[in-house]
Amino acid sequence: MFNLVTAEIINRLTEILGVSSVSTAHADIDLHAKDQSQHHAVPAEVVVWPTAAQQVADVLKLANENRIPVTPWGVGTGLEGNSIPLHGGILMSFERMTNIIAVHADDFQVTVEPGIGHKDLNAQLARHGLFFPPDPGANATVGGMLANNAAGIRTVKYGASKDNVLRMQVALADGRLINVGSRSVKQSAGYDLLHLFVGSEGTLGVITQATLKLVPVPTFMSAVVAGFPSVNAAVETVVAVRGSGLDPAALEFIDAAHCRMLSTTEGVDLAENPTIFMEFHAAQESTLAAGLEIVEEICTEMGALTFHATTDIAERKRLWHARHHSYEIMVRSHPDKKFFINDVAVPISAYPELIAYVEALKAEHGITAYMIGHAGDGNIHVEFPYADDAGYQKAMEINGLIVLKALELGGTCTGEHGVGIGKAKYLPAEHGEALDVMRSIKQTLDPNGILNPGKIFPQNGH
Amino acid sequence: MFNLVTAEIINRLTEILGVSSVSTAHADIDLHAKDQSQHHAVPAEVVVWPTAAQQVADVLKLANENRIPVTPWGVGTGLEGNSIPLHGGILMSFERMTNIIAVHADDFQVTVEPGIGHKDLNAQLARHGLFFPPDPGANATVGGMLANNAAGIRTVKYGASKDNVLRMQVALADGRLINVGSRSVKQSAGYDLLHLFVGSEGTLGVITQATLKLVPVPTFMSAVVAGFPSVNAAVETVVAVRGSGLDPAALEFIDAAHCRMLSTTEGVDLAENPTIFMEFHAAQESTLAAGLEIVEEICTEMGALTFHATTDIAERKRLWHARHHSYEIMVRSHPDKKFFINDVAVPISAYPELIAYVEALKAEHGITAYMIGHAGDGNIHVEFPYADDAGYQKAMEINGLIVLKALELGGTCTGEHGVGIGKAKYLPAEHGEALDVMRSIKQTLDPNGILNPGKIFPQNGH
Repeated sequence: MFNLVTAEIINRLTEILGVSSVSTAHADIDLHAKDQSQHHAVPAEVVVWPTAAQQVADVLKLANENRIPVTPWGVGTGLEGNSIPLHGGILMSFERMTNIIAVHADDFQVTVEPGIGHKDLNAQLARHGLFFPPDPGANATVGGMLANNAAGIRTVKYGASKDNVLRMQVALADGRLINVGSRSVKQSAGYDLLHLFVGSEGTLGVITQATLKLVPVPTFMSAVVAGFPSVNAAVETVVAVRGSGLDPAALEFIDAAHCRMLSTTEGVDLAENPTIFMEFHAAQESTLAAGLEIVEEICTEMGALTFHATTDIAERKRLWHARHHSYEIMVRSHPDKKFFINDVAVPISAYPELIAYVEALKAEHGITAYMIGHAGDGNIHVEFPYADDAGYQKAMEINGLIVLKALELGGTCTGEHGVGIGKAKYLPAEHGEALDVMRSIKQTLDPNGILNPGKIFPQNGH
Repeated sequence: MFNLVTAEIINRLTEILGVSSVSTAHADIDLHAKDQSQHHAVPAEVVVWPTAAQQVADVLKLANENRIPVTPWGVGTGLEGNSIPLHGGILMSFERMTNIIAVHADDFQVTVEPGIGHKDLNAQLARHGLFFPPDPGANATVGGMLANNAAGIRTVKYGASKDNVLRMQVALADGRLINVGSRSVKQSAGYDLLHLFVGSEGTLGVITQATLKLVPVPTFMSAVVAGFPSVNAAVETVVAVRGSGLDPAALEFIDAAHCRMLSTTEGVDLAENPTIFMEFHAAQESTLAAGLEIVEEICTEMGALTFHATTDIAERKRLWHARHHSYEIMVRSHPDKKFFINDVAVPISAYPELIAYVEALKAEHGITAYMIGHAGDGNIHVEFPYADDAGYQKAMEINGLIVLKALELGGTCTGEHGVGIGKAKYLPAEHGEALDVMRSIKQTLDPNGILNPGKIFPQNGH
């Protein structure tokens, strides 16, 4: 189906990109063979580092004419194998396209190259009092975040990556370079191609530039941590806080087992209860204080066993320490284990049923797993430590059961990690005949199937 | 290219829909030949009123097999001819699909049939303390709002129609009935078909069901009306208020000429200045009061000539009266005129230049026109009264110049009215080669071109 990268192709790539931007060295291939997921490394045949959009387009045109796969690469923080070059070919790294092209401060917008890390971007934007709110944790690139529609905490207030982008330049498989969306925040002028490319994981086109929506850095922030007697009480609190009109900036859930592990490992002050972490942003300190009174009333009504609230910066960091560092703490507490992180999301009303189902699975299979989630969005991650192949297979089996339950509850097989390799097999169940429409769009835009092959659509044998 | 609706087709339609849901009566044809725009009426050959999604799908299949155009119709409040059956054929009215299918109160969601008016929907949702925020003014149907990505005031806080929908059922040209999106507020599972269909104006598929995002009815609301010495000062105020983190629910602009007309006609207490109308929503009354202090500081700093603010409901209605009724007041003040309403949007930083350009055009051409806009979104409507064909042609000529200016300023030819008939000719300038991608997607999903033909894409002779 695909052709190999020949010496002639390497020559052509070198003509397009320059000799220092093309490598077949093992070290470079190995560094771009695997993301942070549990999926196996697969080597590309050549790594290229474009420095301009036209180079991206020219490489795609060349690859398309020669039927060579192209897999875009941000910085490798994906959790579902989204940027692993499954079919070899060309690995296109955006590590050298990291410029901020323009800050449109009055428009609360910034135009960037796709390789910039969102944390690096926000460090630059701080001087303008603005920030790009989606935060998947790792310093993922903006291009990778858009390609996978990454989200993270704060999505409950500010939305996912798809909600924070206005315009993109995209290179198509045939070498065309198009612009989609508009710097106008409103646009009803034809089909929304912007959101068709966002979340398409590089399978329809490759993002070469993006104009992002920014928001003002909040003047005041508060934090709340509250523990509850049951998951139901915790989730009812989430619903009540959302319904209060307080517009929380984060509504995070950590299950009792995870709280126990966190407090045992780090001496974090968390009781072994289903716990909700909240954050609020406001323009006025008095708003926060009044808001915290309402939050405390809600938590008390729902039977909270513990309640800590603060508007103090140092205290806020201390309170949120366990949430922000939960992953590292978990890894440190299981030095001999690897981790597989599940990602599903459901309508919030189904959250207690989903959590109860996972609890039941854990009991039935006698395994250790931790739950941490963006409860305000109905998104949960079940984190499975495993030591060997048998443990991995067991985790994958339970992952599959959780996915099917999430779908049964009206949810999705992936809230924010994307389909990549691991979730492709669940798309027929999630989308039905809509998956055929996705296939026909893929066929229209990438008839030779060179763009990130093996992702999103279920393959034979998978 | 298309075939006529024959007696045999009428029979088949009657089999699918029942005899009371198919009409070729002149009265019915005439009632569905024209929307609220200035575009000419065009009669369909038959009007049908489906009552179920499967009927919609069956009609499309029949029409597709027989190459008969189908134009979906909500309630005819479109402003760009979006639902005029330009090529005759079947007019598919959703006037009998107005049910609320399910209220998911804990999820802040509602699932509806497409024919329900958003005002009727919100009246039903009030008992749950929830509402669907997009508000184009008229009681447009939810299906029509989604098909055209309608917006209106309050978009600055709550987003346009596209931002307030989670899942839709869509009938395709070939009769397939698919589901797109998810009731999970987060979904990264493949291509975003949901947003491909939103705003596609019935040219890719027909919406048969939609699950909408709702928000809590705000407990407290405040209103501010402030007049400024210049458009620049008014727009700088808009930018400063957005940058303050106060999260305004409405940021509306009315130009000096419009203010004069409003006060002359209705005795509204508005000086002849560029004026900003604002609205704020909060969970606590104290937040509003503190917020108003900040807003007054900003307005004073920008040289406001007048400033009125209130948290009182009756007073708020009085203050906003001029804005909410500006269109009727304008029509009443020009009893012998028709109106053409332009719709463009630009990045907010370009708003003063756009307004100044329109002022200059008015002076140069010696015409009357009023400006009213959703300034928080950079969206402006220039309203042209005209008496005859010559006046209409002049308005269209100036409309064209305004559109080209908006595009030059990085904006769009339509912020919220959609492309319909009138804006199609500007899409090549706005989208470049991306328009070819839109065409290829249209070709993929509707190869016979039966879905709302003549819309979005520029036609020969237009």
